[in-house]
Amino acid sequence: MRNLFPGKIAVFLPLLSLAFGAISMRSQSPTVVPLMPTPAKLQAGSGFLRVDEMFGLAFTGYREPRLERAGRRFLEQLHRQTGLVFASRETVEPAKATLLITTDHESKAVQEVGEDESYTLEVTPSGAKLHAANPLGVLRGLQTFLQWVTITPDGFSAPVVSIQDQPRFLWRGLMIDTGRHFMPLAVLERNLDGMEAVKLNVFHWHLSENQGFRVESQKYPKLHELGSGGFYYTQEEIRGLIAYARDRGIRVVPEFDMPGHSTAWFVGHPELASGTGPYQIERKWGVFDPAMDPTNEKTYKFLNEFIAEMAKLFPDAFFHIGGDEVNGKEWDANAGIQAYKKAHGLKDNNALQAYFSQRVQDLVVKHGKTPIGWDEILVPGVPKSIVIQSWRGADSLAAAAKQGYRGILSSGYYVDLGWSAARHYAVDPLGGAAANLTPEEQKLVLGGEACMWSEYVDPENIDSRIWPRSAAIAERLWSPADVRDPAAMYARLPVISQDLELVGLNHLTYQRRMIERMAGSASTEETAALRSVVEALEPVKDYTREGIGVEPTSQTPLNRVADAVSPESEASRLFSSRVDEYLASSCKDVAKASELRAQLVQWAGNDAHLRALAERSFLVKEASPASSALSQAAEVALAALDRITLGVPLSPELKKQQFDGLSALELQAHKAQLTIPALPAFQKLLEAATAGGACTIPR
Amino acid sequence: MRNLFPGKIAVFLPLLSLAFGAISMRSQSPTVVPLMPTPAKLQAGSGFLRVDEMFGLAFTGYREPRLERAGRRFLEQLHRQTGLVFASRETVEPAKATLLITTDHESKAVQEVGEDESYTLEVTPSGAKLHAANPLGVLRGLQTFLQWVTITPDGFSAPVVSIQDQPRFLWRGLMIDTGRHFMPLAVLERNLDGMEAVKLNVFHWHLSENQGFRVESQKYPKLHELGSGGFYYTQEEIRGLIAYARDRGIRVVPEFDMPGHSTAWFVGHPELASGTGPYQIERKWGVFDPAMDPTNEKTYKFLNEFIAEMAKLFPDAFFHIGGDEVNGKEWDANAGIQAYKKAHGLKDNNALQAYFSQRVQDLVVKHGKTPIGWDEILVPGVPKSIVIQSWRGADSLAAAAKQGYRGILSSGYYVDLGWSAARHYAVDPLGGAAANLTPEEQKLVLGGEACMWSEYVDPENIDSRIWPRSAAIAERLWSPADVRDPAAMYARLPVISQDLELVGLNHLTYQRRMIERMAGSASTEETAALRSVVEALEPVKDYTREGIGVEPTSQTPLNRVADAVSPESEASRLFSSRVDEYLASSCKDVAKASELRAQLVQWAGNDAHLRALAERSFLVKEASPASSALSQAAEVALAALDRITLGVPLSPELKKQQFDGLSALELQAHKAQLTIPALPAFQKLLEAATAGGACTIPR
Repeated sequence: MRNLFPGKIAVFLPLLSLAFGAISMRSQSPTVVPLMPTPAKLQAGSGFLRVDEMFGLAFTGYREPRLERAGRRFLEQLHRQTGLVFASRETVEPAKATLLITTDHESKAVQEVGEDESYTLEVTPSGAKLHAANPLGVLRGLQTFLQWVTITPDGFSAPVVSIQDQPRFLWRGLMIDTGRHFMPLAVLERNLDGMEAVKLNVFHWHLSENQGFRVESQKYPKLHELGSGGFYYTQEEIRGLIAYARDRGIRVVPEFDMPGHSTAWFVGHPELASGTGPYQIERKWGVFDPAMDPTNEKTYKFLNEFIAEMAKLFPDAFFHIGGDEVNGKEWDANAGIQAYKKAHGLKDNNALQAYFSQRVQDLVVKHGKTPIGWDEILVPGVPKSIVIQSWRGADSLAAAAKQGYRGILSSGYYVDLGWSAARHYAVDPLGGAAANLTPEEQKLVLGGEACMWSEYVDPENIDSRIWPRSAAIAERLWSPADVRDPAAMYARLPVISQDLELVGLNHLTYQRRMIERMAGSASTEETAALRSVVEALEPVKDYTREGIGVEPTSQTPLNRVADAVSPESEASRLFSSRVDEYLASSCKDVAKASELRAQLVQWAGNDAHLRALAERSFLVKEASPASSALSQAAEVALAALDRITLGVPLSPELKKQQFDGLSALELQAHKAQLTIPALPAFQKLLEAATAGGACTIPR
Repeated sequence: MRNLFPGKIAVFLPLLSLAFGAISMRSQSPTVVPLMPTPAKLQAGSGFLRVDEMFGLAFTGYREPRLERAGRRFLEQLHRQTGLVFASRETVEPAKATLLITTDHESKAVQEVGEDESYTLEVTPSGAKLHAANPLGVLRGLQTFLQWVTITPDGFSAPVVSIQDQPRFLWRGLMIDTGRHFMPLAVLERNLDGMEAVKLNVFHWHLSENQGFRVESQKYPKLHELGSGGFYYTQEEIRGLIAYARDRGIRVVPEFDMPGHSTAWFVGHPELASGTGPYQIERKWGVFDPAMDPTNEKTYKFLNEFIAEMAKLFPDAFFHIGGDEVNGKEWDANAGIQAYKKAHGLKDNNALQAYFSQRVQDLVVKHGKTPIGWDEILVPGVPKSIVIQSWRGADSLAAAAKQGYRGILSSGYYVDLGWSAARHYAVDPLGGAAANLTPEEQKLVLGGEACMWSEYVDPENIDSRIWPRSAAIAERLWSPADVRDPAAMYARLPVISQDLELVGLNHLTYQRRMIERMAGSASTEETAALRSVVEALEPVKDYTREGIGVEPTSQTPLNRVADAVSPESEASRLFSSRVDEYLASSCKDVAKASELRAQLVQWAGNDAHLRALAERSFLVKEASPASSALSQAAEVALAALDRITLGVPLSPELKKQQFDGLSALELQAHKAQLTIPALPAFQKLLEAATAGGACTIPR
C-alpha cells in the first residue's frame, strides 16, 4: 500500500486501495481515507484537484439564503483548515466554480425525521460537483468535501473520487445536559458546528434538571427566575440557536424531564410537587425525592399551558418529556397521593407514573407534537406513536421495537462515562437483541444519540468529553454497518479531531490551559512533567467518581488533573497496541521492544520531575499518588520487559506479587480520581515474562 | 531565599524578600512577585488571605454601573484563573466582602490623558481592601489583585501585602494595524482584555491603509464600500468597542493615515489623489506612490466633512493623522502640483507635506481634537499642541521635547519585528538622548506604544505576536524606571502569560492548531518532531522576511512554520542562559553540562524524526532546511561540549571552519524565513572549546 493522502495516517480501506492501486505513490505508508463518517459508496480515481486561493464555489438549481450562508461558512472553514486566503469569499459564477453545487428542490420548512440527506460528490482534476435533492444533502456533502481536502507534498488538494452517500440511520443525535452545569450559547454553537462536521442531525437539549431550569417561560416566569440561579436561555436566544442548528441541518429536540429530575421547577412552583416544600435548587448529584404530583389536576393545567408555550417555541415535531428515575419517596410520604392511588386502582408507583406519563403525553399530542421519553415511559397500553430513548440497555430498544414502538439508542453512547472511542464504536443500534428483529421491526430503530451528562463538565472541558469520541459514534450511526474496524477508526480519529479543533471546538487546546493553571506558569519546561502525567492517565470510568473523596456538587471546581486528562489517552493507547504487536511477534520485534522501553523509561522517571511542582501546587499535589503510581507501574513493566529481552523468566510467585502491586497502584491512582490505562498492557508484559509465558521460550 | 509564592517561579525582589525574611517558608526556591507591571511600592507582610468559593466582592463610596460590571468581570476572571465556582457571582454586602473596594469619586466622562490611575491595595489574612480616587484606579487595582492570587500547596491564596501604586507614564498604548489585515471585533476585544490585565490605557486603532479603509463613513460611504473589500467596522460596532474599552479604562485613539498610506481611500474617491487613477485596493506590502493632493481645495473640503464625522464617532481628545512615509512620486509626476509648489514657495515635497499636514491639523483642531502624528509631522512652526509619535528613533522624541512638543515612543516597541522581550524591555522612553532632558522637558514624554503592524499576522496568530512580550513593554511604561532586570522579567513572564491565556487570548494555544494543520493530524506522537522544531526556532527578525522567496501579499497564507513559531523561543532562551551559566562556572558545573547535552542530543536527533512528515506535507517540507540546520548546528555544539568535557581543545582552524558552518546553517534556516536563536550560544560553546578558550584550561 502507498501513501495516497499524505498528511493523514494509515488506514486501509479495501475499495479505495484497490482503485488507487495503479497510481504512482510517494511513500510506502498505507492509504487513508480521511473521512468520518465513512461514505456509503466511494470510488477513487487517479489524480488530484488542486485547492488553492483561486478556489470558487457556485450554486445552481434550487437556491435559498441558507445555501448561500452554507457556502460562506464552507469557504471560511476551508480557510481555517488550510490557511488559504481566497480571492472570493462569496459564491462565484457557475462557469468559474471549482466546486459546483446543484440542489433539486427545497427541504421541509421544519426539518423532519427521515428527510433525504443523500448526496453525490464527484471530484475530477478540473473541478468538483456536488449534487443533492435538497439543502440537507448539500450540507452533508460540503462537510465530506472539507474533510476530503488534504495536505500533500505539493499543496492542498482533493483526490479524484466519486462518492454516493446517505445515512444508515435517520436519527443521529447529541444530547447536552444544560441542567446540571449551564452551558453558555457559545458552547452549544461550537458543538453544533462539530455535529455538522460529522453529520449528526439532532441536538437533544436537556433543559431542566434538579439543578436548574434553563428556559425562559413567559407564562410562568418563576420557573426560570427562581429555578436557574440566573443561568437560563431567553426565548430569543433559543430561537437563535434553533436557526443556527437549522442552518447546519440539525433538528433541536427540547427535553423537560418530568415527573422526577424536577426540583428546580418547584423552587418557583412548589404547588406542582408531591412534597411540602419549600424547595431549593439542588447542588448535589444523584436521584432525588422531589417529583410532580400526578394526582393534582392543577399540575396538568399548569403543564398544559407550559407545554403550549414550549411547543410554540420549539418547532420540531418531537417533544421530550424525560420520565426517568423517579424514586417515589415523595409519593409514598403523601397521604393524599396514597389515597388517590387506591381510589383509582393504581397498584404501585410505576402505575402512578404511567398514569402521569399518559396525561402528559396527551398534552404533548394536543399541542401538535410527538412525545419522546426515556425507557421508563414504555408501559403497557401506551400509544404506538411515542418514541423510546433507551438508556438502560440495547435489549430494551429491541423489546420496544418488537412491540411496534420506535426507538433510539443511547445506552452505550454515554460519553460522560469515560469509555474509549472503540467501546462506543462497537455499540450498534441494531446489535445485540436488535440483530434478531425483522427488517420491518428494525426500521423502528431510528438511530441513536451520544449523551453528555454534565456533572463533571463545565464550559472549559466539555468539548474534550464530547470530542473526538462522538465522531466515532457519528460514524456508527451514518456509515454502513460493516464499517466497524476500530484500528481503521483510530487511524482517522486524529485527522478528524484536528479538523474539529479548527471548526472552533477546543477539545485539544483546553488541556494546555488547565495544565498551566495547575502549574501557575505557562513555561513549557516547567509544565513538561505534569503534561506527561496528564497525557498518560485517564479519569476513572463510569460512575466511580462519586465514591471518591468529598461528595462533589455543582460548586465543586472542575480544575483538577482528573478534569484535565483526556477520557482516552493517546500515549497509553499507542503503548498498549504496541505491546500487543510486540507479543504477537513472540517478543522478537526488537524495534518494538525499544519503542516500548523508551516510553516506559520516560514514565518511570517522570514522577521525580513532578515533585517540585507538587510541592508548590495543591492541585498537582493531589494527583501525586497517581503520578507516583504511573512511575512505579512503569518500573514493574520495565523489569518485565528486561526479563523478556534477557530471557530470564519471572517466577509465578513473583508474578503474583507484581500483579498485586499493580492493582494496588491502580487503587492509589483512583484516590486522585484517575486511572492508569496502560495497566492491562503492563500486565500482559508480566504474563509474557512469567515462566511458561508467551515470551519465555528461548529464542 | 524561600518559596513564598509557590507555583510561581524564581525572581528576587529585594524589598519583598526582606519583608518576608522572618516568615516560615515551604521550600528553598527564591521569592517571586507574580506581578507585571511591578507596583510602585509594595510592602509584604506575613500570612495569607485564603481565596475559595466564599470569595465575595463589594463596593463602597462612589458607585456606577461600570464598577458593577468590573466586579462581575473580576469574579469571572478569578473563576477562570482558579476554576473556583463562587457562591455569589454578583457583589455582596460590604460586611461580607473578602475584597472591599472604595472609590472616592467619578472619573471624566471621556477618559483623559493624565487622569489619576493610582490605587492602594491592602491584603490581610481576614480580607483585602482596594482604594482608589476614581474607577480607573479601581480597574488597575483589580488586575493587581487577580495577578496576586496564586496557587499554593493548600489552595489558592493572596499573600498579605500593602501596595501603593501609580503609573510612571500617562500614555501606555498598543497600536493594532487593522488596515493591512482586517481583524474581527472579537480579536480586538480579547486584546483589550489583555491590555487591561497589564494596565495599558490607550488602544491606538490604525484604521486606514493602502490595503484597506476600515471604518463605515455615512458621509462618504464609497470609502468603506469600495475601499475595504467588505471588511470594515460599522459605526455601531465602533461605538461598542469604545464602550468596551472604556469599561476597561482604555482610551481609543483612531488613526487615519494621510496623505500617504492612503490608496484604499482613492478606490472610491480618486479625486482626492494626486495621480490619475483609477485605484485598486493594494495587495502588496511596502511604501506606495498614491498620496492625497495637497493643492486641491476639494481635498480639504472633503477632509473637513470626514474629520467632522469621525471626530463625533470617536470621543477621545486625540485624533491621529498618520503622516508617515510619503514617497512624493505622485506629486512629482503631477504638473499642477509642481506649479502650485512654485507659486506658493513650497521648495520641496517636505514643505508640501508640511503645508498639507498643517491644513489637516487645523481641521482636526476645528473639530475639537488634538492632532497626533508620526515623526514626520514635526516640522518647523507647527503648533506646540500636537503630539509626536516617534517611530524613527528615541532621539527624535528627545529632540521634539527639547522644542517643547509632547511625544510618545514607539521606536523600540514594534512587536512585528520579532525582537525578544528583553530587547523591548531595555527601551525606555526616557532613555538615550531623552535621559538628558530637563525634568520639565521629560514631562513632555507622555509614554509609549507597542505597535502591531499586520503584514504577517492574521486573526489566528496575532495574539502570539503581541503577547506576552507587550506585557514587558507595559511594565516599562508603568513601573518605576529601576525595575529593569531582564532575568526578573523573564521569571515572571510565563506566569503573566498563563494569566493572559485565561483572559481569552490564544497566544499559546494557537500553536498547537497550526502545527496540527501542517501535519494534517492531531496525534501528539505524529506531531512531536514538528513541535520540537517549532519550539526551538523563531521567525526571521526585522524586515528581512520581505527579501525571501515569492513577494508576499495580503493574500499570502500565514500557515507556515514561520507563522507558527513564537517570536521568542523559550527552549532556546533557556538553553542560551544555561550556556552562559555553564561558561560562568568555567565549565565546571557538571549538572549544567548534562542539561545542555540532553537538549543538544534532542535537537541533533530531531530532524530524522521530521522527515516522514516532511514527505507528506508541503508546509513541513518547506521548513525542512531549517529543521536540518537546527540538527546539524546542535551536532556542532555537541561536539564542542564533548571537547570541553573531555579536555580536548579545538584548533583555531577547525573552530573557524565550524563557525563558518554555523553561519551557513543560519542562512539555510533563513530560506524558510526562520532563524536559529540558540546559534550564538552554540558559538559561545565553540569559543570556549577552542585552544586558549575559557574552558580549555586543564581542570
